[in-house]
Amino acid sequence: MEMLNTIASSLLDVKRKSPLVHQITNYVTVNDCANVTLAIGGSPVMADDLDEAADMASLAQALVINIGTLNARTVASMLAAGKRARERSIPVILDPVGIGATKLRTDTVKTIIEEICPTVIRGNMSEIKCLAGFDVEIKGVDSIADEKQGALVARTLAKRLKCIIAITGKQDIVSDGKKITLIDNGHELLSKVTGTGCMTTALIGAYCGAMQNCYLGTIAGILTMGLAGEIAEHSLVPGDGVGMFKVRLFDAIYNLTPENIRKQGRISCE
Amino acid sequence: MEMLNTIASSLLDVKRKSPLVHQITNYVTVNDCANVTLAIGGSPVMADDLDEAADMASLAQALVINIGTLNARTVASMLAAGKRARERSIPVILDPVGIGATKLRTDTVKTIIEEICPTVIRGNMSEIKCLAGFDVEIKGVDSIADEKQGALVARTLAKRLKCIIAITGKQDIVSDGKKITLIDNGHELLSKVTGTGCMTTALIGAYCGAMQNCYLGTIAGILTMGLAGEIAEHSLVPGDGVGMFKVRLFDAIYNLTPENIRKQGRISCE
Amino acid sequence: MEMLNTIASSLLDVKRKSPLVHQITNYVTVNDCANVTLAIGGSPVMADDLDEAADMASLAQALVINIGTLNARTVASMLAAGKRARERSIPVILDPVGIGATKLRTDTVKTIIEEICPTVIRGNMSEIKCLAGFDVEIKGVDSIADEKQGALVARTLAKRLKCIIAITGKQDIVSDGKKITLIDNGHELLSKVTGTGCMTTALIGAYCGAMQNCYLGTIAGILTMGLAGEIAEHSLVPGDGVGMFKVRLFDAIYNLTPENIRKQGRISCE
Repeated sequence: MEMLNTIASSLLDVKRKSPLVHQITNYVTVNDCANVTLAIGGSPVMADDLDEAADMASLAQALVINIGTLNARTVASMLAAGKRARERSIPVILDPVGIGATKLRTDTVKTIIEEICPTVIRGNMSEIKCLAGFDVEIKGVDSIADEKQGALVARTLAKRLKCIIAITGKQDIVSDGKKITLIDNGHELLSKVTGTGCMTTALIGAYCGAMQNCYLGTIAGILTMGLAGEIAEHSLVPGDGVGMFKVRLFDAIYNLTPENIRKQGRISCE
Repeated sequence: MEMLNTIASSLLDVKRKSPLVHQITNYVTVNDCANVTLAIGGSPVMADDLDEAADMASLAQALVINIGTLNARTVASMLAAGKRARERSIPVILDPVGIGATKLRTDTVKTIIEEICPTVIRGNMSEIKCLAGFDVEIKGVDSIADEKQGALVARTLAKRLKCIIAITGKQDIVSDGKKITLIDNGHELLSKVTGTGCMTTALIGAYCGAMQNCYLGTIAGILTMGLAGEIAEHSLVPGDGVGMFKVRLFDAIYNLTPENIRKQGRISCE
Repeated sequence: MEMLNTIASSLLDVKRKSPLVHQITNYVTVNDCANVTLAIGGSPVMADDLDEAADMASLAQALVINIGTLNARTVASMLAAGKRARERSIPVILDPVGIGATKLRTDTVKTIIEEICPTVIRGNMSEIKCLAGFDVEIKGVDSIADEKQGALVARTLAKRLKCIIAITGKQDIVSDGKKITLIDNGHELLSKVTGTGCMTTALIGAYCGAMQNCYLGTIAGILTMGLAGEIAEHSLVPGDGVGMFKVRLFDAIYNLTPENIRKQGRISCE
């Protein structure tokens, strides 16, 4: 498949260019995000203070904003870094962790979208649905079957926000407002380890930092985590659990080859 | 033993109910706390800003407060979340990390106890002894033999603070001011990995969030960590060290069964 | 070799004295820094608030300052803890992470050096070169071959700042302004895991907290990480990657013996 070939070769781009991915993220999964960025071949830098956020964004090839443990200080930095990133036309990837759970999260995501206009927004189904709730046009879709609904939500929201929307879950959905791509890799154990969503967003940052095409970069990041999850699970032996699965996840990302992507990637377009 | 049977079945309750455990904790061990909460079957959420702490506590089935890397901003959030938690009658588990080391820690714990009245306080022997130092009645016990002393400190302090006190160490001690329960599981290697205390507190949060009885929930959390430590150590092969032990600890918690608890749990009541 | 024998026995000093190493560090690698401090035999404590930073430094045998995710609040704490550390004549080890990348980092390092006068500064070649840029005397060395240049930069800067300078990389360089010591242990995989630099600084803190001689303590910390990297890599089997390498790194530090140091250490003096 054409798209898998392009993504397979983009893996080599990441390793060759080693894009600097500036990440303003949460303190729960930040170590994993840094390690996953290194494992795929990128170069992570975490800097969340207003006094340096824009300066750091000036050096980066991509910016990842993750609101997992947001506060007033870091939100100001997200906005400053985001504006600088947009001025420089580098991709901004937003992870609206827990949007809908509190007013602070919902309001912050709204502000970031209005002021920064992210290139990519990645969340799980309930986060993206919450985000779509801003849009009255989407509000009526609750009755549609879930598979169909996800694609519709992603496409409508992407169109409205003029960005790429990625919904990750059992089946991952990516849309740019026109095209819809479905990814059927992954394993349920990924949901038993904290931060696999955040790490996927970091991977998207690394790919988008190395590629021109952020639609493919988003698919590449999600596909990488899905494949790594499958490979990691496949390597487990009796007695292993989530501890060893997490170790194997990093091993799999580090050892991932273009051939893995071409042969094991399960992508379809609607 | 009756109590072990109840705890064994509570493990299934955690997995079935998957309680949301809101944790305001330190940035040293936060990733491990999130992963241990997932591994036992709970659902972790970390949110430490005043603008959302109470809102997040409104969604949770238990609140864990850990002062490991406290500051003025997060202490305010602890208090706000704690008050909301008490209004909603969900359990609040306090981990007074390093109390006694600095005035800030001692004062903060005092304030949290006065304003929140936690359901459970878990610490090591020196932390709980420091806490007991608020109570002049306990001050004279230093001459009593250590095993006896721990039980006396726990019971007296629990009675005074009207909460459950847990002292973890070689032998773990839990008291509600009347009953005393001793737990003899665990392994010395648990003290060679950072955060096993914090993780125990997170486990207590998960059990208490799924059970009516927080006395049993506290014992269940401590017993889970002790059993997992034994199982993890038992799985090590020559050349393994603290790195692999930590991996196996998560594996063991994830794979723990009610039968492990019934057959390997070593609990006695005084 | 005399120096290797001394370092080998200092490993036992760390384990016997278990120095308390107060670390004001970044939230990306803090868990690894705590675990590596425990693995070598030290006792880590992380406390970064101004209301307790000096109090905690009063209890410690060494202070580690790492600016990886600095902000105004933590920089104030670094200065307060640093001053207390110097009053108490305990070693202060500075890790100027990312100096040069932003004005905030460069200015902060400058202030810390002026106000605290650290005992040891450890960075990679580009960080130390940036630091040396403060010194016009060093500015002309860019044309000298890299190996020679590193030693010259280290010695000149150490002399000027009256401290120990450590440059870690393929070959590690330590100088006190007179002596130069080169360390040839390590493995390239160490650069594929986040935090190995921060962890090296934490190890230096543990050794310096247990030894009189901080020059040897610095070499011991760097040598420990290098040896552990070699041992960890040597233990890998096909299919392993950076995930398992990191696990084995902690295993190797925990299991390191004086004999490993004496037999496998590759140190030379210029």
